[in-house]
Amino acid sequence: MKAYLTRRYWFSASHRLHNASLSAEENRRLYGKCDNPYGHGHNYALEVTVSGRIDPRSGMVCERGELDEAVAREVLARFDHENLNTTVTFAERAPSSEVLAVEIFNLLRRSFRSAHLEKVRLEETLNNAFEYAGGNQFRQ
Amino acid sequence: MKAYLTRRYWFSASHRLHNASLSAEENRRLYGKCDNPYGHGHNYALEVTVSGRIDPRSGMVCERGELDEAVAREVLARFDHENLNTTVTFAERAPSSEVLAVEIFNLLRRSFRSAHLEKVRLEETLNNAFEYAGGNQFRQ
Amino acid sequence: MKAYLTRRYWFSASHRLHNASLSAEENRRLYGKCDNPYGHGHNYALEVTVSGRIDPRSGMVCERGELDEAVAREVLARFDHENLNTTVTFAERAPSSEVLAVEIFNLLRRSFRSAHLEKVRLEETLNNAFEYAGGNQFRQ
Amino acid sequence: MKAYLTRRYWFSASHRLHNASLSAEENRRLYGKCDNPYGHGHNYALEVTVSGRIDPRSGMVCERGELDEAVAREVLARFDHENLNTTVTFAERAPSSEVLAVEIFNLLRRSFRSAHLEKVRLEETLNNAFEYAGGNQFRQ
Amino acid sequence: MKAYLTRRYWFSASHRLHNASLSAEENRRLYGKCDNPYGHGHNYALEVTVSGRIDPRSGMVCERGELDEAVAREVLARFDHENLNTTVTFAERAPSSEVLAVEIFNLLRRSFRSAHLEKVRLEETLNNAFEYAGGNQFRQ
Amino acid sequence: MKAYLTRRYWFSASHRLHNASLSAEENRRLYGKCDNPYGHGHNYALEVTVSGRIDPRSGMVCERGELDEAVAREVLARFDHENLNTTVTFAERAPSSEVLAVEIFNLLRRSFRSAHLEKVRLEETLNNAFEYAGGNQFRQ
Repeated sequence: MKAYLTRRYWFSASHRLHNASLSAEENRRLYGKCDNPYGHGHNYALEVTVSGRIDPRSGMVCERGELDEAVAREVLARFDHENLNTTVTFAERAPSSEVLAVEIFNLLRRSFRSAHLEKVRLEETLNNAFEYAGGNQFRQ
Repeated sequence: MKAYLTRRYWFSASHRLHNASLSAEENRRLYGKCDNPYGHGHNYALEVTVSGRIDPRSGMVCERGELDEAVAREVLARFDHENLNTTVTFAERAPSSEVLAVEIFNLLRRSFRSAHLEKVRLEETLNNAFEYAGGNQFRQ
Repeated sequence: MKAYLTRRYWFSASHRLHNASLSAEENRRLYGKCDNPYGHGHNYALEVTVSGRIDPRSGMVCERGELDEAVAREVLARFDHENLNTTVTFAERAPSSEVLAVEIFNLLRRSFRSAHLEKVRLEETLNNAFEYAGGNQFRQ
Repeated sequence: MKAYLTRRYWFSASHRLHNASLSAEENRRLYGKCDNPYGHGHNYALEVTVSGRIDPRSGMVCERGELDEAVAREVLARFDHENLNTTVTFAERAPSSEVLAVEIFNLLRRSFRSAHLEKVRLEETLNNAFEYAGGNQFRQ
Repeated sequence: MKAYLTRRYWFSASHRLHNASLSAEENRRLYGKCDNPYGHGHNYALEVTVSGRIDPRSGMVCERGELDEAVAREVLARFDHENLNTTVTFAERAPSSEVLAVEIFNLLRRSFRSAHLEKVRLEETLNNAFEYAGGNQFRQ
Repeated sequence: MKAYLTRRYWFSASHRLHNASLSAEENRRLYGKCDNPYGHGHNYALEVTVSGRIDPRSGMVCERGELDEAVAREVLARFDHENLNTTVTFAERAPSSEVLAVEIFNLLRRSFRSAHLEKVRLEETLNNAFEYAGGNQFRQ
């Protein structure tokens, strides 16, 4: 019996969408208001989905605490209450939410081993969300 | 690196579920209160999911503005603040939310080319939602 | 010990905002898209707030069932899955949500006696809400 | 044309996560506060997703009433306003939400035949959800 | 410049609505399914509203941490992941949400001094909420 | 017949809570993670409540468009997709949400005349909200 567990986490961060190798006009066209020079911010909702067989002893896919610790260490400590542009992760790239979702997926895949990481979903606003499920797992 | 982008749009419309080729009794049994002759209405929440490789230059799956324009032109201009039964789309069919989801998917597939259209999800009420992902893409 | 109880109810209805005594142009200016001739609709969320002393025997302000019955009989039976413009209530007035909130308040005040009716709040969309608290109870 | 219909249902129940065959210390480590001896509770939101071809006569995947009846009979009558630990279903197992999701899926699969049961999703809290899609249908 | 600050907290608890001094029939009539002998439960959302002048040095009504500590100590430590009927607070009363809201207000009023406690609002379910604003502060 | 209208608006902004006249240690104690030097951000939900007699001709408290224009011009143009610390409004003060709510109230009071401005409510996160109702209108 395989099941899925999704836990939701929240963090607040700021960013500016800007690619230094493009002209000012190209940046404006690509990113619109998101290119404002001093940045803006969001309350991000992060949903992490893991899967696995239900352990008959515990009745659970994995221990919640282990997932919470991995997310706290790998994601919240890096990005919560931070300006994404000043983090190491985005030293050379625009901190778009697509790229942030990929980074979070890869960070968790490396460090969380108690169940299979299925996907991450990152809500930037009520009306804008991003998903990444890894490089070889694209649903057709 | 392929990722998914979901954007949510809102529109308000009215409809009456009624099939003129069925008897009054059959309509009542099939549609219940939704067959009330003067119609009723909903705030529809439409989620459109597209996918694609993340453009290394922009960090994005596609430009948000292009998706917003397609939805505004193909969906909101047709259905927002309208009575679905009086639109061309539903001239000969009951405007069920299943059929509306299929129509929206097909309208967007024809006109939006900046990324792959994965699926549409249409929330009719807090407790009732519909998804369509195209004819050959049924998830097994 | 006086306390407040708020219960939320849902109904779906359609309406057209139109005042027959005004010109087409005036209607358009006042109501915009809401004047579309065939109507549109909403999922209304209705919050009813009542107050009273907490009954020491039951621990409650009033029996939930009594409030539910009053709302079902006075509000839901009249407006759920209906076109507001074709109801008796709006035979001669545009069914704006302000007027609907006042009507609901007055209908409940007349028929619900188990606690003091404080106010009604009517959410038309996620971003639009209306409150009415009776004629002599305007908060300053 | 195959489409998906998801309906959401709500129930309130209490539970204690505890495995009588484990030591007190092991229970505490596995379940934390959820092992409190007198139990605690949740408002569960249950989303049931079914799929099927859209019936050209009705425009619907299935009649809503048939799904509602199956959920009322198989799920709500068993678990709503109950202590899960005292139900027959959990006589010999800890009532984790993973196991509850599996049980609900199996109960509905046996009794609901009007469309294909795709999956159930059980939200235990705003930040904790579980999905089960059957034994042979694990998404890769 | 006086302003209001509202913070929301969450806890999960179970309860049974039952008054031992009433007959079984009276309990059933008053509390319905909430009188089920083994209890049921909820995810409670607690909103605490405080007011005060905005401190010109900090720009804040009060320090968030002080309010959080008071709520953690007085409310969450007592009621989170507990069966309300087995707490000292409800040794002799049915744990209705009206009474729980009053108790929480009184517990906070006694221990939180950094700003004026205006009211507490307790959401038992999405559709059921309770407010208490103290004995002498009933809004007319 | 006086009624209340509340409309909700959304904007995304970043800020750093920091008072240059205080020591680093005092800033840390007062603002915690919100003092991070490069800032962080939020999706702010702004609710504006106005009141007035219901115009018998339109059935409305005021024209929605007039309120929307005032909010777009006075609030969204100033703060949406901006870093609050770099706006003129917060040149000399920490951009706490209490002060932001007061500023928004005062900006709207000066420019919106079509109905009485009752209050503004600013949600910084799901669990943190601020209200201001003007200097002489404090509810007792």
